[in-house]
Amino acid sequence: MRYLPTFTETRDTSHIGEEIHALASEIYPLCRSITGSGVRTTLASLSRHIDLNVRAVPTGTQVFDWQVPKEWTIRDAFIKNSAGERVVDFRRSNLHVLNYSMPVHVQLPLSELKQHIFTLPDQPDLIPYRTSYYQERWGFCMAHRDLEALPDGIYEAVIDSSLEDGHLNYGEFLHAGASPKEFLLSAHICHPSLANDNCSGLALLTTVAKRLSSLKTRYSYRVLFAPGTIGAIAWLSSHEADVGRIEHGLVVSCVGDGGGPTYKRSRQGNAMIDRAMGHLLKHDWPAATIVDFSPYGYDERQFCSPGFNLPVGLLQRSQFGTFPEYHTSADNLDFIRPEHLASSYALVMKAIDIVENNRRPVNLLPKCEPQLGRRGLFSTFGGDPDGPAKSMALLWVLNLADGDNDLLGIAERAGMPFGIIAQAAARLHEKELITYPDED
Amino acid sequence: MRYLPTFTETRDTSHIGEEIHALASEIYPLCRSITGSGVRTTLASLSRHIDLNVRAVPTGTQVFDWQVPKEWTIRDAFIKNSAGERVVDFRRSNLHVLNYSMPVHVQLPLSELKQHIFTLPDQPDLIPYRTSYYQERWGFCMAHRDLEALPDGIYEAVIDSSLEDGHLNYGEFLHAGASPKEFLLSAHICHPSLANDNCSGLALLTTVAKRLSSLKTRYSYRVLFAPGTIGAIAWLSSHEADVGRIEHGLVVSCVGDGGGPTYKRSRQGNAMIDRAMGHLLKHDWPAATIVDFSPYGYDERQFCSPGFNLPVGLLQRSQFGTFPEYHTSADNLDFIRPEHLASSYALVMKAIDIVENNRRPVNLLPKCEPQLGRRGLFSTFGGDPDGPAKSMALLWVLNLADGDNDLLGIAERAGMPFGIIAQAAARLHEKELITYPDED
Amino acid sequence: MRYLPTFTETRDTSHIGEEIHALASEIYPLCRSITGSGVRTTLASLSRHIDLNVRAVPTGTQVFDWQVPKEWTIRDAFIKNSAGERVVDFRRSNLHVLNYSMPVHVQLPLSELKQHIFTLPDQPDLIPYRTSYYQERWGFCMAHRDLEALPDGIYEAVIDSSLEDGHLNYGEFLHAGASPKEFLLSAHICHPSLANDNCSGLALLTTVAKRLSSLKTRYSYRVLFAPGTIGAIAWLSSHEADVGRIEHGLVVSCVGDGGGPTYKRSRQGNAMIDRAMGHLLKHDWPAATIVDFSPYGYDERQFCSPGFNLPVGLLQRSQFGTFPEYHTSADNLDFIRPEHLASSYALVMKAIDIVENNRRPVNLLPKCEPQLGRRGLFSTFGGDPDGPAKSMALLWVLNLADGDNDLLGIAERAGMPFGIIAQAAARLHEKELITYPDED
Repeated sequence: MRYLPTFTETRDTSHIGEEIHALASEIYPLCRSITGSGVRTTLASLSRHIDLNVRAVPTGTQVFDWQVPKEWTIRDAFIKNSAGERVVDFRRSNLHVLNYSMPVHVQLPLSELKQHIFTLPDQPDLIPYRTSYYQERWGFCMAHRDLEALPDGIYEAVIDSSLEDGHLNYGEFLHAGASPKEFLLSAHICHPSLANDNCSGLALLTTVAKRLSSLKTRYSYRVLFAPGTIGAIAWLSSHEADVGRIEHGLVVSCVGDGGGPTYKRSRQGNAMIDRAMGHLLKHDWPAATIVDFSPYGYDERQFCSPGFNLPVGLLQRSQFGTFPEYHTSADNLDFIRPEHLASSYALVMKAIDIVENNRRPVNLLPKCEPQLGRRGLFSTFGGDPDGPAKSMALLWVLNLADGDNDLLGIAERAGMPFGIIAQAAARLHEKELITYPDED
Repeated sequence: MRYLPTFTETRDTSHIGEEIHALASEIYPLCRSITGSGVRTTLASLSRHIDLNVRAVPTGTQVFDWQVPKEWTIRDAFIKNSAGERVVDFRRSNLHVLNYSMPVHVQLPLSELKQHIFTLPDQPDLIPYRTSYYQERWGFCMAHRDLEALPDGIYEAVIDSSLEDGHLNYGEFLHAGASPKEFLLSAHICHPSLANDNCSGLALLTTVAKRLSSLKTRYSYRVLFAPGTIGAIAWLSSHEADVGRIEHGLVVSCVGDGGGPTYKRSRQGNAMIDRAMGHLLKHDWPAATIVDFSPYGYDERQFCSPGFNLPVGLLQRSQFGTFPEYHTSADNLDFIRPEHLASSYALVMKAIDIVENNRRPVNLLPKCEPQLGRRGLFSTFGGDPDGPAKSMALLWVLNLADGDNDLLGIAERAGMPFGIIAQAAARLHEKELITYPDED
Repeated sequence: MRYLPTFTETRDTSHIGEEIHALASEIYPLCRSITGSGVRTTLASLSRHIDLNVRAVPTGTQVFDWQVPKEWTIRDAFIKNSAGERVVDFRRSNLHVLNYSMPVHVQLPLSELKQHIFTLPDQPDLIPYRTSYYQERWGFCMAHRDLEALPDGIYEAVIDSSLEDGHLNYGEFLHAGASPKEFLLSAHICHPSLANDNCSGLALLTTVAKRLSSLKTRYSYRVLFAPGTIGAIAWLSSHEADVGRIEHGLVVSCVGDGGGPTYKRSRQGNAMIDRAMGHLLKHDWPAATIVDFSPYGYDERQFCSPGFNLPVGLLQRSQFGTFPEYHTSADNLDFIRPEHLASSYALVMKAIDIVENNRRPVNLLPKCEPQLGRRGLFSTFGGDPDGPAKSMALLWVLNLADGDNDLLGIAERAGMPFGIIAQAAARLHEKELITYPDED
């Protein structure tokens, strides 16, 4: 049984980039943090497209070594000059407030206020993104050029926020496949108006989930939208018994820009998802970069902690931290492009396609080659130099179908794209020349 | 016991290239196919040089997934123009007839006749070689330039052939060594007048077999001359119980041109024959190419099918399919040269030499170095910077003679030719410093 | 428990190069051979700095395949011309006599005398170093230019030496650590006035031993000063029961010149000492060379013979045999420099430091990351692009602390120097986030 047909064969995806971009645009303005209404509103927005379960974990819940923090509510934040004008205004950009900032209302000379202001002197026109989750602080972020233009004097700084007992929220989409074994897809949902670095992943995986809803699959799929670090930890803490079902996983982030793609291997290093991504990138993306696992990044850090060691990799276009727009106001809706979102989407679907269709075939006539010609599988004109190329995929599958090699491994040995090998295997299976002992 | 002395040390081979070429010339004119008198006449010709057993498998015999096909007899074939002149004539080149063609006698306008004529538009002066074994067809092959020169009109096409029950033939040479374990050498015997692509291999292996007849060897040797694919399958089908004895194997083809050498590894990839060929080519042939196993080629396809997975590699000079003379009338007796046949022969004999002499030595004084000086194995002048080089082979053998390494592995680790290491081992064995637990 | 603090952190070593050079200068003039008073006087000299046990093995003792040879005493050696002038004089350089030469007193024409004279025609101003241990010979070594300047005539050649029953001597320093497991350090003590090729190693390891005396260590240390080949064989012969305790080893030679460093791996190839040296050289010495084990060199030949196969590597600066001063009178006290001796010393101490501190940590909170921030181990400002770099070492240790990886392996995976990783591990250990099951 072959579940999911190769994505590119079966569907017009020309508008998919626009769809993903529209969805990212819808959630971009919301001021997310690790807790608070921003996350809930975002999840509500995504719920209009897929059947999403929104979970709530109360403040103070112990999740492994951590405690779920208070819920942050931000209503307004500004700095007013002596003329009463808002020179920094949360309403214009939610990056202006130090994310998770405690409330404050003070009047201060500029020199003292500066100790609470973050800028990027090397990128003087951009507002930086900064957070302070686990130590109570207050602060503002602004363009360095704007800060320099402020005259000395007394300023009024107001952050109208609160930190109170409440909940941490995350959303889960579940798609049941033939098997309870799972493929985990995860994107973080804790950054405010940063388009590539969280909206792109959220929008892309929502679109993947929507597509999966209409498909019969071998694996079950779990799509997770959780606040970075604490959200993943909270999820793992309450799903410890389930993680053994996860056979493949992909964290997705920064998938809307034109760089990369960059694939970071799972801690295992040679899991099937690592092999699948390596295969796809080698064949389709000459500029792709594959990097070994390292313990810094997105939530693969938690999934790949030594106590779990799940086969979860990270897919990005440009690598976080390496592009100038990263964690600044320049990571906006112009920075992510429909065409890049579309190709990132195709890459994820192709990875799913490989995982779904990767089997371990066994040749039913393993002694010598079977006679392909009389089964219509082979050119019957000998001596034609083009003949073999057409049949190589068949010969590779037959020769390596010894139960040790899976189709992905055969594709790698043959130097051919997985789809060609999978197609050849399908023809051989139809002619009863190979079998799949694991399921036939 | 050391069986076969290093080939190059023991024999004048200056005329061997001429001998092989003469033998190839003798069998070149015969019109071989997968069945028929061409194969039998060729085997008879080779039988004048070695003790060859000619086997016959009846038409219709089931051999694994295949049936032995009918025997093809070809008496004449031509195309006559309206003036009664033979414009295509089998008597001038046996490539002119589609090999294994069914009989035909028709009068046709040129335009219709063309559907049965194969040419090479990119090599307009050459006659291509084409076959149609498993679908009944008739056809001619000719130079494209000649076809273009034919005026329109009615032509008479005659193929005086028959396809009738008969036999498939192959020849086997057996040389008994001290052990029933076998080294299989195989060449295909199914192409008509193609000099490199079948005559060279047949002539070379006949010469190897002749040489082996005069030697005491450790291994038994089986030299097989069988029609490609169906012949190898027929042989495997009737020798299934014996193939477990095959410890090394080499398919030999296209060994008369000046390219390569090209060695294709066995499916196992690291069998002793693979290591031996890799070693020889690295040391002696800087332009050699070593390629991994792939399931297209000569009869290594059958020997390396997953149900057998024999340690059989393929030796060629230029790779089949890559040289312009391949499967054309330009693959003639001028294309193969005595000097290339001689060096190909030397390469095969050196591979045999390695396999014969490769042992797993064990140091009898493994604690510290033995005192080589008093055994006359070492320069007794210390401090001489040239001293060690002379003795390095001795030191390498002693150091690695732990039962885990064979002499070929030691040669690889030492970066020295096998012969030097084998010689050092012989000196150490003579002095009772090493032993071979497997046989002493 | 962490035994030996990183060498470079804890001690002013600015004068160490001068100290080592002074010690090398003290022993340089002595005429050592494989036996005799030169070795004893040298050991006595070293004994003034460390607690050295001097052992004596009688002539004729069977040591594996060898017998301890006679003791060589050299009192004087010269060649006098007809005018009675010493044209070659042992008193000016002890290289002038063929080392271990039998006594002689002859008058010979120059032409006959030349058969007993060694020179270096390509380095005409240098006296070569030559020995004849296991065959009784007499001879002189001299500068080729001086030989050519000698007029024909009768010369008087005198070597006032004796070869009599006596002893072979070696020195052993032992430093007891917490464990009986040993780190073996070895230098040869058999060359006469060659500064790099024996004095440098002897002086350096004496200084290492002196330093170890003042330290509490995990491993026990054995420093061995033995005549090349026969001395190591004699030691192994009488310590066969003890060698199982040797877990790491380093032969040290030619460590005073400015080349290399060159590290030759142990026969095992991936022993901890091999990994440690590879790590250090990669990080600190871009010009370093690492070579695989080969069975020629210094006493690693004996330690790595197949019957022992100890994890013993060889550290040199320039490789023996490759520098023009090697085995000539140019290998003198000017050729070795305090700064090179100091950096070689630092390299040995750093290798010891790695071996001492290399553990296999286990993460006590392996599920997800522990919260480093509240333990003061992590920047609490999120979004700061420099934050992670500071904490990467902590994250690497935590992630790979699964009991399979040692700290050295973690450093290699992280691409960080061992010291940084060891420091991070110490902080995590202090906070009870990791443990060392092997000893805590």
